[in-house]
Amino acid sequence: MKIIETIAEMKAIRIKLKEPIGFVPTMGYLHEGHLSLVGKAKAENKSVVVSIYVNPAQFAPTEDLSKYPRNLKRDLAMLEQEGTDIVFFPADKEMYPEGYDTWVTVDKLTKPLEGNFRPTHFRGVTTIVNKLFNIVQPDNAYFGQKDAQQALVIKKMAKELDMNLNVIVCPTVREPDGLAMSSRNVYLTPEQRKSAPALYKSLILAKDLFSHGERNTTNILEQMTAIIQKEPLANIDYISIADTETLEELHTIKKSALVSMAVRYGNTRLIDNLILGE
Amino acid sequence: MKIIETIAEMKAIRIKLKEPIGFVPTMGYLHEGHLSLVGKAKAENKSVVVSIYVNPAQFAPTEDLSKYPRNLKRDLAMLEQEGTDIVFFPADKEMYPEGYDTWVTVDKLTKPLEGNFRPTHFRGVTTIVNKLFNIVQPDNAYFGQKDAQQALVIKKMAKELDMNLNVIVCPTVREPDGLAMSSRNVYLTPEQRKSAPALYKSLILAKDLFSHGERNTTNILEQMTAIIQKEPLANIDYISIADTETLEELHTIKKSALVSMAVRYGNTRLIDNLILGE
Repeated sequence: MKIIETIAEMKAIRIKLKEPIGFVPTMGYLHEGHLSLVGKAKAENKSVVVSIYVNPAQFAPTEDLSKYPRNLKRDLAMLEQEGTDIVFFPADKEMYPEGYDTWVTVDKLTKPLEGNFRPTHFRGVTTIVNKLFNIVQPDNAYFGQKDAQQALVIKKMAKELDMNLNVIVCPTVREPDGLAMSSRNVYLTPEQRKSAPALYKSLILAKDLFSHGERNTTNILEQMTAIIQKEPLANIDYISIADTETLEELHTIKKSALVSMAVRYGNTRLIDNLILGE
Repeated sequence: MKIIETIAEMKAIRIKLKEPIGFVPTMGYLHEGHLSLVGKAKAENKSVVVSIYVNPAQFAPTEDLSKYPRNLKRDLAMLEQEGTDIVFFPADKEMYPEGYDTWVTVDKLTKPLEGNFRPTHFRGVTTIVNKLFNIVQPDNAYFGQKDAQQALVIKKMAKELDMNLNVIVCPTVREPDGLAMSSRNVYLTPEQRKSAPALYKSLILAKDLFSHGERNTTNILEQMTAIIQKEPLANIDYISIADTETLEELHTIKKSALVSMAVRYGNTRLIDNLILGE
């Protein structure tokens, strides 16, 4: 496994890699969710590149950039174990040199849900992912379903800019009690951690209601909200039942829907989602 | 010479082309300026791809999209003559399918000069050029110095998004009387056409003043303005003496400067420029 820190070296080594190339972009502090992406990339490609880069452009000034958890040594050991070929680990000055001013945006799809609470977030995501795609030039790139809106936005960007790769979205990996794996779970106090599976419980409730024929989203949202509100430590940013492609809110579910949510525990913001009718 | 109308076919044929590949994106209605780019691409590459696409995203609703001059048959004959291998000629629905919503922007550099008069123009340019770069995947892409700000913006985009190609800027080609070649020159009435070399005359004056030691831009701009204002049919949008990289206006020229202008004749907007101290 090679660790590459500059764009020039990454591009130089890229030419020598066996194709197809699978790519997993991460912000490090890896967990089983990331490793499932690496495993899928390994199974479907001849070379696997993983990037570790905490992208400042996707954090607002009020967010957790400076305290975002980092543990490079542990990350590298985990990636080596998974059979990763290349780890791309660039510095900020490499990715955003002074005077940097080029941005990739997906407009309407980034307005609701996460975009509503984090208005500059997706511009940072699409820009860094575009750059990483150009640097690594993968055949296949892997993203987690946990960030459902991000996955849709990146798929749309890659398609609409005619990029030469496939975007592959993989299932959310969960703790035994249902909490979606996230690098940010480490922020939770023991009490918050104990309460946090409420998100998944509310999603499972939505699934049960749907499977028993409920199609009215107001009814489903009310019962989901009640489950979360039973938790005194939880503060709901949003709970949404939306079209799986456009992310427009639905009144009635026809064939399928994305049920998604963001819930704050203190300063820690958790997101989770589930697709109904899949 | 093959004419390709879909992205899928262009990508399929791209793989078979001999490398390096030179690419010249155009809006058609070709003139000697375009052909000089094709000639340079031919000399420096093993394959040459030219696109002809009048990009709606770079025209404002008030601008000349619908009446932009077109003559495909003549264009194709000229490109064949120059030894072009592939002409990429896509339809709007191919480039901007329904719901299209991904945009590439370069921020500060697109604010002054042309951007000040055409606020949505460069977003259209950078987006379509980004798409074309991904579709054609050239090694070298050729642009004319006549669109000086466009050339700087595209260079910045390609560099900052880590795209895998060189952007090469070629000298402006002029009519015998100095008028910069442009597809829009066809709009000029005989009287306007007779007056239009005033732009180049004012640039040559700036060059003379500079070569005789003048460094104060107010003095140069005053004399340039006087030359254009002598022409009763000409209306100045701007005359600028700016930094060759940042496009910030200069009070005093140190080493070099971009002298540029936009002048309207009726509804026809002409641009021209020259670099001092090159």
